Amino acid sequence: MRYFTISLGGGKIRVKEGEGLLEALVSAGIWIGGDCGGRGACGRCRVRFLGAFPPPTEAERHLLSRGELDDGWRLACQHNVEGDIDIYVPIFGEITREKVEIIPAYVGPLKPAAALEVLEAFPPSWKDRQSELEGLEATLGNALEPSLPLLRALPAALRTDDRWITLIRVGEKVVSVRPGREKLALRGLAVDVGTSTLAAYLLDLETGEVLGGGAIANPQLPFGADVISRIARVRKERSALKRLQEATVSGVNRLVEELASKAEIDPKEVVHSTIVGNPTMLHLLLGVDPSRIGESPFVPVWRTTLVVSAKELGFTVHPEAVVHILPLVSGYIGADTVACILACGLHREEKPCLLLDLGTNGEIVLGNRERILACSAAAGPAFEGGRISCGMPALEGAISRVEIDGGIRCRVNGGGTPRGICGSGLVDLVAGLIREGFLDRTGRLRRPGTHPLAPRIIGSGKDMGFLVEEGIVLTQRDVRELQLAKAAIRAGVEILLLHFGIEPKEIEKVYLAGAFGTQMHPESLVMIGLLPEELLPKIRAVGNAAGTGARSALLNRMALEEAEHIARKVECIELSCEKSFTEKFVEHMRWGDEGGRE
Amino acid sequence: MRYFTISLGGGKIRVKEGEGLLEALVSAGIWIGGDCGGRGACGRCRVRFLGAFPPPTEAERHLLSRGELDDGWRLACQHNVEGDIDIYVPIFGEITREKVEIIPAYVGPLKPAAALEVLEAFPPSWKDRQSELEGLEATLGNALEPSLPLLRALPAALRTDDRWITLIRVGEKVVSVRPGREKLALRGLAVDVGTSTLAAYLLDLETGEVLGGGAIANPQLPFGADVISRIARVRKERSALKRLQEATVSGVNRLVEELASKAEIDPKEVVHSTIVGNPTMLHLLLGVDPSRIGESPFVPVWRTTLVVSAKELGFTVHPEAVVHILPLVSGYIGADTVACILACGLHREEKPCLLLDLGTNGEIVLGNRERILACSAAAGPAFEGGRISCGMPALEGAISRVEIDGGIRCRVNGGGTPRGICGSGLVDLVAGLIREGFLDRTGRLRRPGTHPLAPRIIGSGKDMGFLVEEGIVLTQRDVRELQLAKAAIRAGVEILLLHFGIEPKEIEKVYLAGAFGTQMHPESLVMIGLLPEELLPKIRAVGNAAGTGARSALLNRMALEEAEHIARKVECIELSCEKSFTEKFVEHMRWGDEGGRE
Repeated sequence: MRYFTISLGGGKIRVKEGEGLLEALVSAGIWIGGDCGGRGACGRCRVRFLGAFPPPTEAERHLLSRGELDDGWRLACQHNVEGDIDIYVPIFGEITREKVEIIPAYVGPLKPAAALEVLEAFPPSWKDRQSELEGLEATLGNALEPSLPLLRALPAALRTDDRWITLIRVGEKVVSVRPGREKLALRGLAVDVGTSTLAAYLLDLETGEVLGGGAIANPQLPFGADVISRIARVRKERSALKRLQEATVSGVNRLVEELASKAEIDPKEVVHSTIVGNPTMLHLLLGVDPSRIGESPFVPVWRTTLVVSAKELGFTVHPEAVVHILPLVSGYIGADTVACILACGLHREEKPCLLLDLGTNGEIVLGNRERILACSAAAGPAFEGGRISCGMPALEGAISRVEIDGGIRCRVNGGGTPRGICGSGLVDLVAGLIREGFLDRTGRLRRPGTHPLAPRIIGSGKDMGFLVEEGIVLTQRDVRELQLAKAAIRAGVEILLLHFGIEPKEIEKVYLAGAFGTQMHPESLVMIGLLPEELLPKIRAVGNAAGTGARSALLNRMALEEAEHIARKVECIELSCEKSFTEKFVEHMRWGDEGGRE
Repeated sequence: MRYFTISLGGGKIRVKEGEGLLEALVSAGIWIGGDCGGRGACGRCRVRFLGAFPPPTEAERHLLSRGELDDGWRLACQHNVEGDIDIYVPIFGEITREKVEIIPAYVGPLKPAAALEVLEAFPPSWKDRQSELEGLEATLGNALEPSLPLLRALPAALRTDDRWITLIRVGEKVVSVRPGREKLALRGLAVDVGTSTLAAYLLDLETGEVLGGGAIANPQLPFGADVISRIARVRKERSALKRLQEATVSGVNRLVEELASKAEIDPKEVVHSTIVGNPTMLHLLLGVDPSRIGESPFVPVWRTTLVVSAKELGFTVHPEAVVHILPLVSGYIGADTVACILACGLHREEKPCLLLDLGTNGEIVLGNRERILACSAAAGPAFEGGRISCGMPALEGAISRVEIDGGIRCRVNGGGTPRGICGSGLVDLVAGLIREGFLDRTGRLRRPGTHPLAPRIIGSGKDMGFLVEEGIVLTQRDVRELQLAKAAIRAGVEILLLHFGIEPKEIEKVYLAGAFGTQMHPESLVMIGLLPEELLPKIRAVGNAAGTGARSALLNRMALEEAEHIARKVECIELSCEKSFTEKFVEHMRWGDEGGRE
């Protein structure tokens, strides 16, 4: 196997011969545009070759200008790495990583499944002459599963002079057994496999402290922007499942390594891990074919909580670490939604609460301790900045808030020059444009003659756009993307209300999950009509609630059981089977509850 | 890693650079002398270098003559393979393998744990929208463990047009799930890891038919002739445990490959395996440190039945095949003894029966359905031809029966020229010599003046010997070895009778296990005094009863449970703690019940 180097700016990436360039960049954590799953159709994964450059492909001749081609611009998805190359990636010239905000949330009391037990191990006696394992079980007071790793570790652990041994257990399983009264560290790893982003948290399981959290682009991105396109890829290409699995696992390992290095701990100290994600992401992580999720009746291969070992999964933490994959509800409602419910405590509420998790798919949950309804709305990735011409995830350089009145003020994540606009910024921007009369109720851009920002409307007809910052333009097409997304979510909310048999005003709280929710102005959500106005005072951002749920399950062993109860309790509403869905969808294509100035 | 070739006669062995020569030869199945565990002390692993030869080591200068050294004779244990070599191995110039006799024995009714299930798998419906796994469980009527291999195999199995799927299960575990109504073969593998010999049987689990059986020298032999010396090696050398484990696993794999090839089946068809062996052998097979077995109070690391996967163990059968390691009783009474009891049905007998398994260690069991006593006598390897100057295992070329009256007649295993004498031949020979007056009651060789065979007594004093065949001499030292071995066994039998509180005549049956037992003249056993004369009519050979027990557990799932019950029921008598043992041992150092002509 030969390796080549991709140089970009100051950084270098080591890549296997023949690996796809787009894949290699995304695997290295570099966020690069691309919505078409590497088919050469969207033209967004542009890079510039600084040395010799390959002849353009048909797709490139179609999507790039003559001048661009002559300057070495190519599409990353069209080329494999067949030698050392030096390239320029236009927007993101360096490896960027989201700083995951650690939001204190419901985790319950600290009762982790992982526990350290220090025992005085009595040497075997002539009298009972049991095995070493039985002696240990007698001291512990309960039986242990006689796994090979345990049997292999036991003799060395018991053969010390001071008679003390130290066990690390996660539930019934012995992860580690060592001689002496060593104070071993117990670390946990919570992973949220999102369609666009892999997030992970490193926890100290004794104190409950979060030692670090981080996120990188999901290395599956070159295989398609959403779950449907990735499933399609698996169905089409024999090797894709294995490649998607390996990419995801190595992405998690990269995150763990980085978090551990920052926290100055050894990744092998991680003895327990919990994983959440939507059903397709979890299937791909485990190397299980998700094809059935993509065809009627959209069922997953399994639903209950899975317990596997880190070794089996390929995680480079302690090889015997226990990994819990949280349970699924259906082919579209996954462990991420279960974890959100767990984190918000919706399943314990007396009065009905609404939970929105607006990622690449939009999950909507409505329920209380009696009953929980959930649906998944095909909202598209607009809320994550996907399929938006200058869209990007909520990483450094993203415009995350926009205020428009006489002028326009943008907040850029991490400060500095804006590189694009993320979901929350997009909603703010569109809300402002509605309020200021730049958009009519049908969603058409227009130039309100007297407005001080009127000159920012550029182009005309189909090419009309609003200039947000230099190089960042909101196009008519972008507005349409958001319009479709919000209509899908709003229609979904209404369908759930209908099934639950309540009015919006009866909703007690509205939980807004995801980075999107955290940076959101609730007013903007109501302004674009994603939620009815009467819910405005009830909206609360809960951050990455899926990640919080995964952390809860590490810190409190009851939470793992609770997750399974939640998963079995949730009733799924399939929106595509709902007759009134289309009607409501069309109705909410219009902007705003009250609408803008028409 | 470089490889070299050892040429010997027509055969070639591929060996890793730096591997020990003795180890390489034994690993290749070549039986070569050696009792000292490769320490250069016994001088029995003689080979002749045919090309360039290495300078002699101190041990070689001590043990080989000047002329031998000049002719290229060396000790295999003293040299590593550092280049291609051409050697001559004096007695066994080719790869020999024991033909294991397949003795029909108690296996009980055919109810294997492995089962083929063909199901009509209904596609998931909109109504229940369960996962694919749940749909399968509903059809089966019971829950399945959601292991990664099952989840990975399930989608492909369920995505066929004809709706049928075929499952292979061993107990609760799904080993294989495939689409269609394929008639899959179910094979089982029973393995008996003996201290000197690895034996294996390949079974058809649907018919119970034995597809083949075979044995090879245990590749652990270069590490020491008996369990004590192998344990000592593990304690002394850090890497020995791993090497012993790998050698054993690769030995089993070699046997499986050969048996499968002869039976014209695919080794991957093996879905269930049972393993028996003494405690140390099983520890070494699993890579578990057996050190504690070698020190007071001689306890093993575990005792209960273990269930592991073939993949985990490194067996090259179906990776998900279920492997049951049968349970141990103590540090010295192992799964081999449990399997012998199971195979003979001793635990179901009303009247007490005696069971002798005379391998490298001698296990003695006395019991019935009420109570079972067992002990292990350090008899040494004489019954397997070990530590006997012309001794060899019961392989091809071994003298296995001897009749002496006026003349001498030898039966040679496989016909042909005798290469040595195995345990049964040795006992016959010594019994004949006692009867014919060549041995006095104290075990001293003498020349009965008038006997036609008197000229066969050669040498004198300590160097006296009896010429059996050309080049095969029974020495005074050999007689002493057997004398010690039989005294240990006989004393053990008497101790058990004492504990059980019965007289020899109350014993209903005497089971003689092992290849040794099969080829034995019961009269000779009584003549040398291994058993009291009144037991003669009760002696029955049961062949490799340990192997039969292992096969029983493959063919009848109840036998697996029975084995665990037996293991927990057996009471161990530690001979070294018995005050009267030494007395009885000394008493039985004399020959015969009646003794020879004095």
